[in-house]
Formats: sequence, C-alpha cells, structure tokens
Amino acid sequence: MIPTITAFERSPDGGMGLARDMRVRWALEETGQPYDVRLVSFTQMKEPEHLALHPFGQIPTYEEGDLVLFESGAIILHIAQHHAGLLPEEPNARARAIAWMFAALNTIEPPIVEREQVSYAERDKPWHAQRLPLMDERIRQRLGELSDRLGDAGWLDGSFSAGDLLMVLVLRRLEGSNLLEEYPNLAAYVARAEARPAYQRAYEAQRAVATDR
Amino acid sequence: MIPTITAFERSPDGGMGLARDMRVRWALEETGQPYDVRLVSFTQMKEPEHLALHPFGQIPTYEEGDLVLFESGAIILHIAQHHAGLLPEEPNARARAIAWMFAALNTIEPPIVEREQVSYAERDKPWHAQRLPLMDERIRQRLGELSDRLGDAGWLDGSFSAGDLLMVLVLRRLEGSNLLEEYPNLAAYVARAEARPAYQRAYEAQRAVATDR
Repeated sequence: MIPTITAFERSPDGGMGLARDMRVRWALEETGQPYDVRLVSFTQMKEPEHLALHPFGQIPTYEEGDLVLFESGAIILHIAQHHAGLLPEEPNARARAIAWMFAALNTIEPPIVEREQVSYAERDKPWHAQRLPLMDERIRQRLGELSDRLGDAGWLDGSFSAGDLLMVLVLRRLEGSNLLEEYPNLAAYVARAEARPAYQRAYEAQRAVATDR
Repeated sequence: MIPTITAFERSPDGGMGLARDMRVRWALEETGQPYDVRLVSFTQMKEPEHLALHPFGQIPTYEEGDLVLFESGAIILHIAQHHAGLLPEEPNARARAIAWMFAALNTIEPPIVEREQVSYAERDKPWHAQRLPLMDERIRQRLGELSDRLGDAGWLDGSFSAGDLLMVLVLRRLEGSNLLEEYPNLAAYVARAEARPAYQRAYEAQRAVATDR
C-alpha cells in the first residue's frame, strides 16, 4: 500500500528543502518506499477536510490505508518502525536513536524556529535588532553542546539514524544565519548527510514542485 | 531492574510538578513501575559526569542497566513500549497516540516555553510588555486548534495515552497566564488528568523533594 503525504503547493522556501515534507520524503527514500504526494494550498490547509487529517492545519500528513498521521516526528518513527534503514535493531541503540529524534525536535528546533518566526513576524518592530543577539546566544548554547557531543564522529550515535535525519534538517533551518558555520563539525555533519543519495532524491523531488510550476 | 531517573535538587518551580521529571514519574506510576531518583544540583548538571548521560546538561535522565536515555519524550516512549498502560495495542491507534506525544512536544510546547523563558530572561527589557500579547496570540492559536479537536471527548484519541500525559503537562506550564482558562474543555481535560491516582502519586513524590528539605 503506497502512502500519500501532503506538501505545500507553494512552499515558503521556494523548494530549498526546509519545509517539513522533506523529512518524510527523505525517510521514505532511505527506506526505499514509494509514495504519492498531494499538494495543498494555504487556504486548503485550514479547511475542514485537511483539519480532519491535521488538527493544526499544517503539512505533512501521512495516509496509508486506514491510518492517518500528522507530526513529522511521528510519521518518521512510524516509517522507521516498519522498514529497515532508519533505526538500529539492537534495543538499547534503537531507544537512543529515538532519543535523538526527540532532541532534534524538542531541544534544538524550538529556539531555531523561534528565531525564524520572529524574523518574519517582528522584523519591523523596534526591538528586533536588539533581540536577535539574545536569540542567537540561546541557539549557540545548544549548538555548542551538540558539537561537543558529536565530536569527530560521523553520526550522533553509531550508524546514520532517524535521529540524524531530523537533526540535520533542523540544523539546515539555520541557513543564512551564519550560526552553523561557527561549529565546523556540525557543518560537516550536515554536508555529510546532504551527500546521501536518499537525501538528494528527496531534495530533487520537493524542488521539482517549485520549479515545475 | 529498577530504573534510576534524575530530578532537580532544587526545582525552579518549588515542587509544583512543572519540571520534566514529573513526566517520567507519572509515566512510571501509570505503568506501575518502581523507580529510584537521583537529585542533581544546577552545578552538577553541567559537569562531565552528568553531561555523559545528558548532552544538554538537563534533567530528567533514565538509567536502566546498560541503557541511558535523555529527553522526556523518548523516556516515556521507552516506558510505554515496555509496559502496558500508556499506548493502545492496536497498531494504528498506537501510532496516533505517539503522534500526540510529538504534537505536545513539537507543536504545543515551544510557544509556551518561549513565553516562560522570555518572562525570566527579558522581563526587564523595554519591549517585554509589548511582546507578551504577541506571544499570547501564538499560544491561543494552538490552544484553539487543540480545543476544537478535543471537543467534548475525554482524551485526545480514545483512551488515556502517553500523548495525553505529555499534553497535559505541557498545558500545565500555562498556569498563572490565565490562557488555559479561555478554553474550558482544555481546562477540564487537565483537571481530569490531575485526578488520576497515578498523577497524584507522581505529584506527591516530586513535591516531597521540595518540602522535605
């Protein structure tokens, strides 16, 4: 049964792979699973038909037979639990890889998304320029700790996992801020992930939505 | 094998159950599992011994034999996967309950924690009073969507699950803001959870750390 995911009809990033459908596309590519995509407009995302799939009116969603999922973390965990390639088999290593999924989404992503959101919502406010260094400092604290833990390892805990997949895409949201570049091992980690054939297939697929218009 | 979790030696909330060890205590109580607690000071949390357990120098951690986990979401998922009481058995319902875990941590919690953090870090800044309504509006958007989805159901998707456990404790972080009270079904949902015997045992256990000093 081929799952269907949703993605932006017009992604705000213009196809740079920063929208959350990229996470699901990459996970499906790493596990060799085919998938269908349904594009939704910003208007459609807030209509009852889409809200029935996603209570917060966002993308991506994941439909597979009777199963409907939202939240990219949950979708990726579902894919990883059903197909080899994203989680180790050994139970303790598997639990640790899942811990990195949560770390990406609950510890690293929030201050990065916050910086991104206020850069849209508050850029005309008189305080924005003064707050930016405060937000950067919070992000640097987390990046420093992550950089220390990664050290010169290739991936966060042994082989590439769903934890790395989410972490890399969360870190990519810093593009343009020059913050990631302050941590050469993290920049190299992102580049290493971007070189994976599955990443490249996912990237091209989401980019085609923007460029085929 | 009895797991050991870490908690604040002096919780910033003074034992109101808002620290993240409460999540793990409650999950262990719901599943009837005994546990040991090791208290750590703010200094200890940033020392190498604790950083080896938790790369971001926080609590809680979870140690069970050779397994060391961090991130409360991952710890609760681990507990829920090994003991009955926090996730449905039926695979699709189980995947949906896990989606609510991620929704609590990645969609609902970030704007709530942001409001909490700037209320400490920026309360003396001239812009703080002007930004507070902006932050409240972002939280209201999410609470409104959550309230619409919950409707008059008892729990988010069928029986009480780990998704409800995390959502309730995330919503509790709004205490003192008066925001939750604008959504009576959400306030009732939190109260319903707080009435569970397992919640009360967990609450008393973390409260004893503060009051026994």
